[in-house]
Order: sequence, then structure tokens, then C-alpha cells
Amino acid sequence: MQVAVCGPRNCSDQDKINAYEVGQLLAQAGCTVICGGGSGVMAAVAAGVRSKNGLIIGIRPNDSTTGASPDLSAVIVTNMGEARNAVIVWSADAVIAIGGSWGTLSEIALAKRRGGIPVVSLGGWAILRQDGQQVDDAVLSAQSPQESVELALRGRH
Amino acid sequence: MQVAVCGPRNCSDQDKINAYEVGQLLAQAGCTVICGGGSGVMAAVAAGVRSKNGLIIGIRPNDSTTGASPDLSAVIVTNMGEARNAVIVWSADAVIAIGGSWGTLSEIALAKRRGGIPVVSLGGWAILRQDGQQVDDAVLSAQSPQESVELALRGRH
Amino acid sequence: MQVAVCGPRNCSDQDKINAYEVGQLLAQAGCTVICGGGSGVMAAVAAGVRSKNGLIIGIRPNDSTTGASPDLSAVIVTNMGEARNAVIVWSADAVIAIGGSWGTLSEIALAKRRGGIPVVSLGGWAILRQDGQQVDDAVLSAQSPQESVELALRGRH
Amino acid sequence: MQVAVCGPRNCSDQDKINAYEVGQLLAQAGCTVICGGGSGVMAAVAAGVRSKNGLIIGIRPNDSTTGASPDLSAVIVTNMGEARNAVIVWSADAVIAIGGSWGTLSEIALAKRRGGIPVVSLGGWAILRQDGQQVDDAVLSAQSPQESVELALRGRH
Repeated sequence: MQVAVCGPRNCSDQDKINAYEVGQLLAQAGCTVICGGGSGVMAAVAAGVRSKNGLIIGIRPNDSTTGASPDLSAVIVTNMGEARNAVIVWSADAVIAIGGSWGTLSEIALAKRRGGIPVVSLGGWAILRQDGQQVDDAVLSAQSPQESVELALRGRH
Repeated sequence: MQVAVCGPRNCSDQDKINAYEVGQLLAQAGCTVICGGGSGVMAAVAAGVRSKNGLIIGIRPNDSTTGASPDLSAVIVTNMGEARNAVIVWSADAVIAIGGSWGTLSEIALAKRRGGIPVVSLGGWAILRQDGQQVDDAVLSAQSPQESVELALRGRH
Repeated sequence: MQVAVCGPRNCSDQDKINAYEVGQLLAQAGCTVICGGGSGVMAAVAAGVRSKNGLIIGIRPNDSTTGASPDLSAVIVTNMGEARNAVIVWSADAVIAIGGSWGTLSEIALAKRRGGIPVVSLGGWAILRQDGQQVDDAVLSAQSPQESVELALRGRH
Repeated sequence: MQVAVCGPRNCSDQDKINAYEVGQLLAQAGCTVICGGGSGVMAAVAAGVRSKNGLIIGIRPNDSTTGASPDLSAVIVTNMGEARNAVIVWSADAVIAIGGSWGTLSEIALAKRRGGIPVVSLGGWAILRQDGQQVDDAVLSAQSPQESVELALRGRH
């Protein structure tokens, strides 16, 4: 099973702690982890996966490995900017978003657009329409790293 | 000036009316309009642009012109699924989102991630973080087609 | 009908003359022309199309309109580097390659990989396998702008 | 070091034997191997890498893992058709092409267009211009799996 963990370069300390633990839990569960391969949440999840000898793939937006986390098992260089977010989402059997940025929101939206996989948010975005109604087909909200991984691993829905 | 108009295949009648008028207003202002090239909001904006003899380009997700609106001036076939949303956003000097879907939300998020261009929402998404705080760097909210076009044409900010 | 005209930034004077005439002929035939939107062959074909009031769309590799030919009717900004070559090829009902570069060869190869459309070479690449055999499913070789357009417009094969 | 091994689904028995051995040699040299992740040359190189417990990543063109080789360490699902060839090329410090197809030729051309990395052909394409001249900045021609790996590992040039 391949799980994507998304999150911003610029994140809170709590986001980093969460990402590291999510990475450890996914590696211990035998999952391959896909991420954006950069700093912040991306580097923290990579470090967590590596600490448990798991497999962690980074999908980079630019045209070189510059800025790639040193903890990645392999680096995919797309040279496609944020269109790489679609590649991350298509490569995943579940998506966990940690913290919030516009890039992370695009990954949540692309994952919901794709459909058929769990999309979990930990400490990040709530999605509302302009009329203030919560979206029906909601993103799953997790309160802890453990809960985010449990929701992700519950499988396709 | 090139303006992207985004919106879902499945939309309300009001969304279609809005999209048609936005298309007319943009064409009258001399803008080239970029859209996803399909049905719903996309077809309505294309019809509006064409009714004023404007230039309207559709950026399709699939591998053929199947499903493309007949009102398009030209059809770009990306064969890249929703990654084409990034192409729409990068090709625009301003983005107007009409109505709401996950695909449309991804376009809003990708446009805000890019930065430097007006992103206007007409009858669609409000973006909130999980803590209930409105996002500072907000999407511009328009109440009418005219207002959406005015906000878009006010230029790069 | 949409026809892609491919060719390098750095090209011969003869390539430019050929590209300009191909652009004129395609516009006169009522075709929309797709190209890479840059200098060299791309700028020459754009100028030719524009001289006959045709529609010419440029598909750019970088993240802005910098470097785009001023004769383009519309500029699609992909921010995807040479992966945009696949977009050019998928958007075309026929491909004419003028002159030779590695980028142009990739467009020929992607068009043949797609299949089902005429791929015409004017003054550019010959494709051979290592064993020296000419490839069976060959690129169509044209000796003049007129012949290249005739081969392209003969339609899908 | 990451090395891409490219080649067609439909290939000769000799191509498969070559690909398997190239995979083994690259894994033994400690390289991560990138490939298209499908059948034919792609499956053979994956099997070779796996037989030596190396890391092998498949970059798929379609929107699911359907058709992916079972020997892959991880599967990247691009949903971008042959535009994924650009991703393979950008992710590699060297490219080895085994056998010939239009898709493989596009990878060779995209790699030469990128420049700065060794591009090696084993039993596949020879590239000539229409005037019959061999291209100066030529693809490196290898006569054996060992030679192809040596040329690839000689590093960036």
C-alpha cells in the first residue's frame, strides 16, 4: 500500500512532530510513503519513515534534486511545478494532509476530485462552500497522528 | 490579457447564467479566455465568449477532443487529467471560479499557490482552515458577473 | 482541423522561410496552428499564420510568457518543460516538423507513439535503427512547404 | 545515483536478456533504477534489479497500477501518458535505452534535449538527420550490458 503525506514547506513545530510520527507509523505498517520531497512537513515525514527503515519517495516540482530531503529513498524529478501534486495524488491509495498551505489544499482537492481513496486532514484545512455549508463528501478530520494513519489504512471507500 | 474561467461540469442554472455573462464581459473587454473546455460552466463561458466573437481556448484533460464544447476557438488536448488545471492557472493573468467542485477548488488553490494574480470566486468556495479562521490571503469574493470581471481586470496584485 | 508545426529555436534561414510559408498555407486552408510559441521555426510559423489572419496557439515550456512570439493569438503556459511537447502532439490532427533538434525529434517520436495522424518531416530528421534499417512506419518526408501541407491535410491514416 | 532504463513493451528476447543483466549490474553498483514500470524491457530490468535486492521505481503513464510490473519497489502513477517520459528523463543521472520503439526514441530525444547526462543505446536506435549525416552530439552506442552500464556510470559529461 502506498500512502501520500502532504504538507507545506513552511509549517508549525507541531506539524513537524506530527509528520515525523505519521512517517514512523506508516513505515511500521509496511506502507511505502510518497511525499513532495522538500522541507518542512515533507522533510519530517521522510525522516520519520527513514528512522523505521521504510521506503519514502519524493516527487519534486523543479528540474533537479536541489532542495530534496536527504532522507528520501528515491527522488522523482518532474520539472512540472505544482502539477506534480496530481502525480502524488494518483500514486497514493490514501492521502494524509498535515498542516495547511495552498499547495496542500490543491492536493486535497485533487485527491477528492479523483475520489475513491481516503483523504485525511491533520491540523490543516477545513473546506466550506461560500454559503457556509460544510461540504458533504468531507475530508476526514484526524486529531492525532495515530488517528490519521488509522483512517488512511481503513482502505479505499 | 488572458483570463481563466473555472467551474464544474455539474453546476446550477445560476452558475451557467453567470458563466455566460462573464464570458460576454471578458470578450467585450478584449480578453482571451481560457477554460477547461467541457460542459457546464465551461460550455456556458465558451458560448458567452463566442456570442461576442471573442477568443476562447479549452484545455482538455483527456486524450481527444471528445466532450469539448463546440464553441471553443481552439482545443488543447493535454492527456494529463486534472494536472491540466495547473496549465490553465499558469496561462492566466487572472482566474474567475464560478460555482464549486473539487476540480474547481484545486484550480483556486493552484492559482493562490502560484500567487501574483487575482483569484475571484463567484458563488463557489469559501476557504477556511480547520481552526475556523478565514484565510488571510483570501480569494476575492464577487456577488455578480460584473463584479467578478472588475476584480479580475483590476490586474495583477 | 488543428495542425502542429514543430521546429527548433536555432534553425537555418531556409527552415525559417519554410516555416513562414507552411504557416501561410495552413491559415489559408482554414487550419488552426499549434506550435511551441518560441523563436526560430516557431516564430516564423506564427508570423506566417498571422500574415493570413489565421489562429496560432503557442504552448510554452516555462512558467511565463517570456520568450513567446508576439504573433501568437494565445499563449498556453505549461510550466512543464519539454513535457509540453506531448501536449502539442495530442492537440494536433497532423504534425509537420521543420528542421531538426532533439526537442523536435521528441515531438516526432511522441507523435508516432501516439499514432493515427500524419507526421511529416521537412528538412529535418531521418529516423534509423542501429542496424541501419529504415523504420517501416516511417515519418513522411516532404521536399517543400506545399508538399508538407498536402501530406498533413491528407488526413488521419 | 539514479539511472533510467528505457525500452519498449514489445521487444526481442535479446532485449529482455540485456535488460535483466543491466538491472542486475546497476543494482550491484548501488544505483537506484527508474523505468516505465510496464512489460517487456521494463519488466525485465525490474526483475534484474529485484534479483539483486536493488531499488526499482516504475513511472506509469496511465491512471492506476494496472499493468505495473510486480517487481517494482514503488509505482508512481502519473496519469500523463507519454509525458511521463519527461519525468523519467529528468529523474535520471544517466539513461540507458534498450531496443527501439517510438516511446523509447522520445526518451532518448528528451534526454539529449535536457543535456548534461550520458545517453546510451543498446541494440536500439541510430539517429540520423535527413541529409544522412550522423548527429554530432551522438547517443553513446553500447555493444553489451556491461558496456552500457560502464558508459552510464562514467558520469555526467
